[in-house]
Amino acid sequence: MKKFMNDPNSFVYEMIEGIYLANSDKLEWVPEINTLYRKDLKGDRVTIMQGSGSGHEPAHIMCVGEGMLDAACPGNVFAAPPMDYVYECTKRIANPHGVLYIVNNYQGDRMAWDMAREMCEAEGIKIGVVVVDDDVSVQNSLYTVGRRGVAGNFFVIKACAAAAAAGKTLEEVVAVGEKVNSQVRSMGMALSSCIPPAKGKPIFELGDDEVEMGIGIHGEPGRERSTIKPANELVDIMFKAVSEDLPFKEGDSVALMINGMGGTPISELYLLYGIAAKKCAEKGLKIVKNYVGNYCTSLEMQGYSLTLLRTDPEILEYLNAPAEIPIHIF
Amino acid sequence: MKKFMNDPNSFVYEMIEGIYLANSDKLEWVPEINTLYRKDLKGDRVTIMQGSGSGHEPAHIMCVGEGMLDAACPGNVFAAPPMDYVYECTKRIANPHGVLYIVNNYQGDRMAWDMAREMCEAEGIKIGVVVVDDDVSVQNSLYTVGRRGVAGNFFVIKACAAAAAAGKTLEEVVAVGEKVNSQVRSMGMALSSCIPPAKGKPIFELGDDEVEMGIGIHGEPGRERSTIKPANELVDIMFKAVSEDLPFKEGDSVALMINGMGGTPISELYLLYGIAAKKCAEKGLKIVKNYVGNYCTSLEMQGYSLTLLRTDPEILEYLNAPAEIPIHIF
Repeated sequence: MKKFMNDPNSFVYEMIEGIYLANSDKLEWVPEINTLYRKDLKGDRVTIMQGSGSGHEPAHIMCVGEGMLDAACPGNVFAAPPMDYVYECTKRIANPHGVLYIVNNYQGDRMAWDMAREMCEAEGIKIGVVVVDDDVSVQNSLYTVGRRGVAGNFFVIKACAAAAAAGKTLEEVVAVGEKVNSQVRSMGMALSSCIPPAKGKPIFELGDDEVEMGIGIHGEPGRERSTIKPANELVDIMFKAVSEDLPFKEGDSVALMINGMGGTPISELYLLYGIAAKKCAEKGLKIVKNYVGNYCTSLEMQGYSLTLLRTDPEILEYLNAPAEIPIHIF
Repeated sequence: MKKFMNDPNSFVYEMIEGIYLANSDKLEWVPEINTLYRKDLKGDRVTIMQGSGSGHEPAHIMCVGEGMLDAACPGNVFAAPPMDYVYECTKRIANPHGVLYIVNNYQGDRMAWDMAREMCEAEGIKIGVVVVDDDVSVQNSLYTVGRRGVAGNFFVIKACAAAAAAGKTLEEVVAVGEKVNSQVRSMGMALSSCIPPAKGKPIFELGDDEVEMGIGIHGEPGRERSTIKPANELVDIMFKAVSEDLPFKEGDSVALMINGMGGTPISELYLLYGIAAKKCAEKGLKIVKNYVGNYCTSLEMQGYSLTLLRTDPEILEYLNAPAEIPIHIF
């Protein structure tokens, strides 16, 4: 295993320390619960938090900032946050308007956030929950009852945060999140596996010419293992699976995301985007926003996922709302 | 070789097509010379262009936009652009204020841009040239006389573009570029090799526990091949090499960049940033801007480079100037 790290046990701590040191003007850091939260919270609106396993960065610990999360409290790599992290993190950002939990649909996450919700509610904190389950690859999965939550999560965060910033109530923000989740579909695939620091070995094995279609972001099996194919064919399979699921229909306005799994060069992601954009045109889908890059990853895995979100004027307004998070170009 | 592509011969074309399709409201595409240029040029100021080998994205073809390049015309993967691409591209953005070429210091690039400059000057187009050579790893290299140009290039583009937008003359913009280049130092290292599409094989071999310190972005040998070390030690070696080169001194204000080589997860890049930020504090360097992500890559190589730029109020103003390019989060 070759990674830039000192010790598997301090990997998550040191990553969060780095994010904090790069953004200490805007973020507070609570090392003992893996938490970063916004310094400038005023208690005047619903706040939003998330935290799933680490290893999917920038989701979610690098998504704390204006117009996105108010706090994040990830667990260790590919491990849900302990319920007390969630509980303690909630208390840092709670106010009478309530706190929204955006939870990706994995059983470990569901349990941690459910229990933390109960603990918080017992103390009079108002909690709303939106569960994200956009992955069309498989119905149930290794660690999931129902569909998995993957890159579509980004759109749920973005829309809910914009709605909260606009002064919506907790119930209204939950409704926005559920609406976006109902309109977003994703599927991923892998060219390579990845190595969690503590494990030190690949989470699955792929042959030199094999790919896994419908892979989960923790290496969960997908729909099919096949030989590598030209990009056109790979996009065709995934576009079909994603676009026929909702289904997306001629005339729909959509946001199209090509998400890298962590180790895929951006040259290849744009090449995939070009193919997917042409598929959208063929099907009569109008792309109103595009996203190409790493949003929800699986450590250094080479692979990508394709996400389509059906938009309407309300969703588009939320997507276009101002936002600023630690990851930036300039 | 597992890559998202259709054909090695169309890899660059299809990547640029994808960038164009994602940004056709802002960019013009001239496929036959690999060129993207800004739609909104008004001929009222110096324009800026670049183009080196492909495979280093987002440098440089994804850096065309407000406050950055006005045009880019890369060659094939790891190949300088043909002189006629440079010449034809120049004509698309030329105006009486002149055109600035920002050239990374590789012999192939130098030759192509020199010849194109002569062709353009023969037609009365005013050309300025800034050569970037920020890599402290080695004095000469496989394809380079003098130092190589690597991630420091980003700062030269950013500052020159801001100076041009502020209405500076070609001579003044060249002076800004030379000043920034004189104040920026970088060094890179690799955990893994990478595979150019047309070659189909790794450009060099590294053992399971080996790293290459001082690697070039085309796999050129560095200073030393050693076994993998804890991140603290790796950063220590690189920070020392970079910071002692200018040299950077106690009290200096700096921009610190941790640049991924393409296949390194952003979790590891932030971990490295945290270590490097503490080294800056120990040495008395004040970080006024930070950059963590992929800026100048080597396809899917796992590795990183560390760049320090000594800033002053003029440089900082340029770094803070507005900019917007195809790669974005929101």
